Parts: sequence; structure tokens; C-alpha cells
Amino acid sequence: MSVPDIRPELSGERFRVHYLFQGDEATALEAARDLCVEQTIEFPLDLTPPQLRGAMVGEIESWESITGRGFRAVVSYAVEICGFEMPQLLNVLFGNSSLKPGVRLERLDLPAVLTGHFSGPRFGRAGLRKLLGVPERPLLCTALKPMGLDERQLADLARQFALGGIDIVKDDHGLADQPFAPFHRRVELCATAVRRANEQSGENTIYMPNISGPADEILDKARFARDVGAGGVLIAPGLVGPDTLRNLAADDEIALPLFSHPALLGAFTASPTAGISPFVLYGQLMRLMGADAVIFPGHGGRFTISREECLEIAAGTESPLNGLAFSFPAPGGGQNLERIPEMISVYGRDVILLIGGALHRYGTDLISGCRLFRAAAAVA
Amino acid sequence: MSVPDIRPELSGERFRVHYLFQGDEATALEAARDLCVEQTIEFPLDLTPPQLRGAMVGEIESWESITGRGFRAVVSYAVEICGFEMPQLLNVLFGNSSLKPGVRLERLDLPAVLTGHFSGPRFGRAGLRKLLGVPERPLLCTALKPMGLDERQLADLARQFALGGIDIVKDDHGLADQPFAPFHRRVELCATAVRRANEQSGENTIYMPNISGPADEILDKARFARDVGAGGVLIAPGLVGPDTLRNLAADDEIALPLFSHPALLGAFTASPTAGISPFVLYGQLMRLMGADAVIFPGHGGRFTISREECLEIAAGTESPLNGLAFSFPAPGGGQNLERIPEMISVYGRDVILLIGGALHRYGTDLISGCRLFRAAAAVA
Repeated sequence: MSVPDIRPELSGERFRVHYLFQGDEATALEAARDLCVEQTIEFPLDLTPPQLRGAMVGEIESWESITGRGFRAVVSYAVEICGFEMPQLLNVLFGNSSLKPGVRLERLDLPAVLTGHFSGPRFGRAGLRKLLGVPERPLLCTALKPMGLDERQLADLARQFALGGIDIVKDDHGLADQPFAPFHRRVELCATAVRRANEQSGENTIYMPNISGPADEILDKARFARDVGAGGVLIAPGLVGPDTLRNLAADDEIALPLFSHPALLGAFTASPTAGISPFVLYGQLMRLMGADAVIFPGHGGRFTISREECLEIAAGTESPLNGLAFSFPAPGGGQNLERIPEMISVYGRDVILLIGGALHRYGTDLISGCRLFRAAAAVA
Repeated sequence: MSVPDIRPELSGERFRVHYLFQGDEATALEAARDLCVEQTIEFPLDLTPPQLRGAMVGEIESWESITGRGFRAVVSYAVEICGFEMPQLLNVLFGNSSLKPGVRLERLDLPAVLTGHFSGPRFGRAGLRKLLGVPERPLLCTALKPMGLDERQLADLARQFALGGIDIVKDDHGLADQPFAPFHRRVELCATAVRRANEQSGENTIYMPNISGPADEILDKARFARDVGAGGVLIAPGLVGPDTLRNLAADDEIALPLFSHPALLGAFTASPTAGISPFVLYGQLMRLMGADAVIFPGHGGRFTISREECLEIAAGTESPLNGLAFSFPAPGGGQNLERIPEMISVYGRDVILLIGGALHRYGTDLISGCRLFRAAAAVA
């Protein structure tokens, strides 16, 4: 046998992952057993010596039929195999198994010895409310768009949104570093416009630029944003990488609130029998990556997500995670003022109401439209 | 109207993207029109002034019914909106639309003014063959595993693989920086073991460590690998971010061959009517990111990919892309020596035969097993 039989030194601490499997019970159980190997040693079991196999391979800790949905396995892994780093944690959770049909990642149960390696949301719900001076009501957010406007025009929109009382004015996530509104000029002008509007209004609106672009420029761009007065950062982990968000969240010098955007992540949540559950993706993982607020497509807008999935996401943002702060749910994608009561019925008041393009439809001008938004959220 | 009517300065150059839509023709066409807005201005069309709309919104250039598959739209976008950067290019291609059902990204048609911003594969097929001194036959690759072995045991496996004549000895992609085989010690020992084996055998085997871990350590780890004699780098863009691969490929100081691994990317290719086609994901995008070889689950192994999809991927790795080098297809995931004739019938000789765990099943010891692999590939 070419593989020596050793027992790696392990702490005995394990993390647990809930997976859903399809097929008849024998097929589903075989798939679960395969996953225990695929996500770890990825090596023929019969060629793996017993001690090594016992230490490294995932273990099925429970097995249950879920009527109408399939079979749920709770699989545990030694904490050491994820190396206490985000990319390898994602790999153990679903790396190779993402390439197989009929398996879905549904829930994480992570011990403190693992989550302790992640700082999580720096502000969280309580910190963001304190920063904005808004103790109770839903937070109001809108986006600078459409793409194609130049930096002066975007800054003027930012000014109007701030004067109208929006709490968070973010870039549309499609604003990167295009020639028609280059990043550095745009961020400086928009941050300045919001600061001046705050001086005039007495409000605490923050401007939140979208940070995208080359991997080695992300931190520099975030530092620049902070230096010119931006109050937060929007970032899409599907576009720039999950650990880029975590790395930004852990940077004590930048120390700004972070909003995650779901761009490119749709394939993960498209199927009820495959991919990653919205609870894990938007609730648990984004928090572990450090998102203070998690933007996702809200139900009843331009996207097809259900009310139930939105409730699941909201639950994920406030599920126990060894003391990591709660993220704000921020449902977006085609919302409007008329939908505010429904949004509050789903999320309660701990929600960020994100209304983008539709905000241009209310009032006699943009500022009065924003005031209607603020009023609607206050009474809801 | 709160949005000024301006016409951004554009070059007139456009890139074209093929999408497949589902439903009856009216539904599909409406979805295609929505996509043109969703991927660009993300703003109500009726509130968008005409010049801005004309400049920014995607245009359906052709529309075709594809029997049994749906409707194909070729949509063009102004090159400027992607900012000539990977994250925003991915966002324009499929960011928000990934969150909608019944749309699939099928093919890219990118002008030289766009691809010119990407260096692509530094070595490509020809460069990798020259580096390895293997002008014609398929290249042989295997992986160091199972996870759980310590760095000395992994280095001893590397030594045996090199003595057996394997061209590329890579880390299993689950080897990150775990306590049982820490990154720096592992990479140094394995690189040294392969160098010594080459001195003994006269071969040109390269050792290729897996680079994972915190976003801000990736380049340092790759530099370390190069400094201690690694001959290439394995990297999983789904785990560390697509632009992390591109950034590594563009680094003239590191300048090593890069192999991409498909971990976590399965959700994108799981459906024939949604997500991203294997042609785009493994063929076109990985090349644009700079992968000299693209690892993907080959047909007939542990994964469920079809022969046709594998042919599609192979075609993508050598499709015209304004002079960017061709990537090597590297089908893996449960292959064995018996499957070599079939693999060569699909890919020809420009293929990397990746046989992992099964290689431990042949010959009287690991070295003789590797020699059987080499012999099987030579005569196929």
C-alpha cells in the first residue's frame, strides 16, 4: 500500500453541515457517503488506511427523510481540514459536491473554535443603527443610477437623496471604474455631496461606493473611499471573491460598514434540490464573511424569489453564530413604496428598505420623493 | 425628470453575448428585453432619457428559435460598460440575470479592444509543452493525496510520481494550509523532492502547489512557491475569486503556469436552461483569466458531465479569442488508465490526462504504476 497509515493530530472539535439528497433512500445514502469522501480525502476508500480514514473522512451523524424534499444528512468534519480559512471552508462545505446533481447545502452548525477565526460583521445591526443615529425605524437605502451618468450628475443625485433623508446612498453595483464615471473622481464627488447635504440638513446620510476591479486594488480603493469621506462600502463577493469581502471586513484601518451584493450568485440558489440554500448563502456565509447588511432579491419585485425564501434569509441573518453580530437583511430588486407594509410584515423593523429606480416616480421632484419614502417607512 | 439626458462618450466598439431563453416566444423575448436593461442601467426604461438609453442599454442583435432548446438572443453591449476589468465584465455578462430563471449564458464574442486588456494564458498549450519538453504526447498529471498525510509523506509521494515519469505533480485542491501539512513546509519539501527526482531521472517533472487562503496572501504564497522551485500553481477561482486568478496570471515576476480547478463552480453548469455553459465557463472565461490548463470533471468518472459537454469545453479552450493562447483541457474526477483511449478520442493528444487516486491501483508499487500510465498514454 502506497499510503502510510497515520493518525493526524486533531483537536476532536468538529463542524456540522446539513445536506439534502435526492433519489430513493439507497441512492441518497450512497450519495451522502460519497460526499463524505469527495469533500475530504477525495481518494478511493479501499486504498485509504483505517486510521487516516477515521480522522479525515466526513461522518454522517444523522439521517432523516424529509417528506416531499428528500433525505437530510448531517455530516461532521474535523475542524482542522478547513484550515480556518474562508476558501478552504467553502471547499469543504461544497467544493467538488457542487459539481454533482441532487445534493444541496442547507445549514451550517459551526463551533466557536472555527467561527473565532472570522471577525464577522464589524458593525452589525446595532452598530449600523448607532452610526446612522436611527434607533428603531427601518433604514432607508437607494442606489445611484442609471449607469452612463457622469460623476457630477451622480453626485447631484446623491445630494438630492441625502437632502430627502435617505440613510444610505449606495452606488449601483454596476458602477465600477468606467470611463464615463471613473471610480476615484466619482467617489470623491459623491462623498463630498453627501457631506455637504448633511451639513445643510443635519442628517447622517452615508455614501457607500461600489468597490470592484482588479484583485490587488480592492483594499486601496476602500482606503481611498474612507479617506474622502465615504461611510461604507458595497461589494459583490460573487464578482470579487468571498475572501475579498472577509479581508475587507477584517481591516481595522478601513473599518467601514460593508454591504454585500448578490451579483452572479443566482445559480447557487436556483434549485430547491441543488446548490446552496438562501439561509446558508445570504444568512450564514455572508455574515461569516463580514457583511453588515446583505442585499438579496426581495419577493414581489423583478426577481422570482418567494416570500418563504426571504423569511429564511432573514432568519439566517439573525441565527446564533457564536456571538457574531447580526447582519441587516436588505431586500431589493424592484421594490417600491407601496410594498413597504409587506416588507415590514416579513422582516419587522430590522430591515433595510432598498428602493432604487422606483424612487424617481414619487413626489414632485427627487427630494420630495425621498421624503415620501421616509414618511412611508416611519408609519409602517 | 430627475435624470439628465446625456450621451456618454463611447468608442462605438461593442461585445456580443449569446443567451438562451425559455418559455413561449413572447415570454422569452420579454425576458431578453429585460436582460438588456438588467445587465446595464437597471433602471425603469420609461424614466431613462433617450440618448442615455440608446448608449447604455444592451441591444438584441439577433433572435432565433433553437429547436428543443429555447430561443437564442445575441445581445451587444458598449465595451466601455465592462470597464475592461474582470469583475465588472462578469457582472455585465450575468450578474443580476444569474438571479432570474430561464436564462443561460452560452457564448462570448469579444473584440480585440476588450480582450487586449487581459493577458490570457502566459504559457498556453505550446508554452507548457516546451517547458516540459514534451512536444506531442498527452501530458500526464496526478495529485498529492489523501489529505491528512504530513508534508514529508506528501513529498515522498511527489518523489515517486516524478521518478515514475509524471509530467505534472499537483497538490490535491483540498490541501490548503492545514496544521497537518502546513503550506510553506509542504511546498518546500515537495518542490525539493521533485527537483531531486528530476536530477536522478533526467525528466522535467514540475510540482504544482495549490494556492488558497486569505485574499491578501495569495501573491506572497505564489512567490514563495516559485522561490522554492515549484513549477506551476493550482488555483480554484470559485474559491479565491476570478480576478485572483487573472491577477496571478498577469504577474511577470511569478510567471508560472497556472491550472484552474472547478471547485464550487458546479451550480453554474448544472442546468441546460440556466447558468453558464461549460463552453463559456471552462473554455472562454478561464482562458481570459489566464489558465494555462483548465481542470474540469471529465465524462465517465465520478461526475455526471456528458461526453458532449466535454467536447464543448475542449472546443472552448481552442476557440479564436483574438490571439489569446489556447488552454489545455484537463479532464479529471475519477479517471483511470483504461479510459485513456476514450479520452484521446475526445480531446486528441492536446490533453492533460489527470489520474489521481486510481494511479495507486496499478503496478507493483507507485513508481511502476506511473510507468504504466506513461506507457498507456504513449501508445494511445
